[in-house]
Parts: sequence; structure tokens; C-alpha cells
Amino acid sequence: MNAALRKQRLRAFIRQVWDLGNSAAADDYIAECYRIHHDPGDPWDGQSLDLAGYKDRVDRSRAAFPDQAFDIQGLFADGDHVVMTWLWSATHRGDLPGFPASGRTIRMSGATAYGYDADHRLTGHWQITDRLGVYQQLQANLSATR
Amino acid sequence: MNAALRKQRLRAFIRQVWDLGNSAAADDYIAECYRIHHDPGDPWDGQSLDLAGYKDRVDRSRAAFPDQAFDIQGLFADGDHVVMTWLWSATHRGDLPGFPASGRTIRMSGATAYGYDADHRLTGHWQITDRLGVYQQLQANLSATR
Repeated sequence: MNAALRKQRLRAFIRQVWDLGNSAAADDYIAECYRIHHDPGDPWDGQSLDLAGYKDRVDRSRAAFPDQAFDIQGLFADGDHVVMTWLWSATHRGDLPGFPASGRTIRMSGATAYGYDADHRLTGHWQITDRLGVYQQLQANLSATR
Repeated sequence: MNAALRKQRLRAFIRQVWDLGNSAAADDYIAECYRIHHDPGDPWDGQSLDLAGYKDRVDRSRAAFPDQAFDIQGLFADGDHVVMTWLWSATHRGDLPGFPASGRTIRMSGATAYGYDADHRLTGHWQITDRLGVYQQLQANLSATR
């Protein structure tokens, strides 16, 4: 029961907050304290965020990639966690340090283990993304436009 | 019941085959056909391996890192899958393309979704590793020894 509900809520959260950029909707999904346990390369790695901090993270993360979309590959529920495996794509529309907006499509893949509280809100995550793949695409686009 | 058994078998498999390098022990854990569904940067990404092919992958992958050890962070069982989140460390003892053996410790993290058959054997995986983190360490070690 909980597993199906939590998977459904995770799909809705990813769609509303991360794909469509409705960071205010995080109120319905994120606990008062959200812990980023492990997320190499993420600027918020290791931090605990309140709701305002979480929304700020969403807004800043999406700034360079406003049309981003997650393509969920698998959802795996066990105990108080749901793990999501995913692909992601976005048009590079905003500047990143060292990489001005290219207008090109960037693709990424990753896996994220989300923790839940008793109210089925997200309490944090442990995440790996294929950063090297993204870096190589940004680098190739930079070379192509020079 | 299946979930606990499969988690226990996964721990034993990682320890015997990947940590200790007993690739012959894969006979007990790997199905006749093992599919690497998604594993960016892995030389076998997208391939289907028979048992001999799987053992060859173990032997080749471990060659540069003979003392490698996985530190399992979480195991999440759902349906016919178990997802493992993990840290990894090893001494860089063998040459890699562009990176001669440095004798330094390399650290990595990743997440792997393993599929199981009815005999609790592994049928394949979907994996993400933090390749950029590894690349940055190899690069730093190369600069330090130049």
C-alpha cells in the first residue's frame, strides 16, 4: 500500500517540481528538514535544507535547463525508501561556469534513493549521476561553437 | 523471504567475486545470460554476457585494482530487483589507458539495480558510477607524479 502510494507521489513530485519547475509544489512533498546524504558534484552535497532552501535548490538547478525532463526507468520501494533510476534530458539554455548556453540537448542518467517519513514526505536522498557524461557533452558543445 | 535471501546472496557475491576476485564463484550467482542494460563508461555497456564472458569482465575490471573493496551503503528489494548503493575504494596497482599505476587510493561511489531470476541468480544490471570523481583522482595522481 505504502509502496504504491510513495511511488505515485514520487512520480508526481518529479513531474511537478523538477520537470515543470513548480518549486512551490515542494510544500506537498518535502519534509521540514531535507538531508542530501551523498550527491557527488551537487553544490548542496552534505547539506540539510529547509523548505525554502530546497525550493532555492530547485530554482537554481533548473536555471540553465528550463525544459528539463526526467524519464523514470525504475522505482524500487523497500522499507522507508524508494529508489528511482532515471534518464534526463534538457536544452542547455542558461550559462554554467565555463560553459555558456549552447542551445544543445544534454542527456544524463542517474540513480536516487529517497527516504520517506510517516506522512510520505521526502526526508532526503543519496544520489549518483553520470557527471562525466554531462561534462563530455558540455565540452564537445563548447568546442563545436568556438 | 525472497528479499532477505536475495540481499544476503548479493552481499556474498560482491564479497567473493568483486572484492576477493574469485571470479569462478560467479557460477553460483550469475544466470546463463547476464545483460548489462545501462552502465555508462563500462566497456561492456549494452552487452549480454555468458558466464565465461562475465568472469572475463571481473578479471579485466579488477586487474588495475586488485585490493578493491565495496562498502555497501543500502540494499533495496522490490519485485525481482535489488538495488545496491555503494562506496568503493582500491589501490591503483595496474596501468589504465593514459594512467600508469600510481599506488594511490582511488575512491568511487555508485548505485546498481540488479535483476534476479526464479533461482535467485543475477540476470543483469542497470548502473551509474561517479566516473568524473574517478577521472579527477586519476588526473590529480598523474600530475603529482610527473
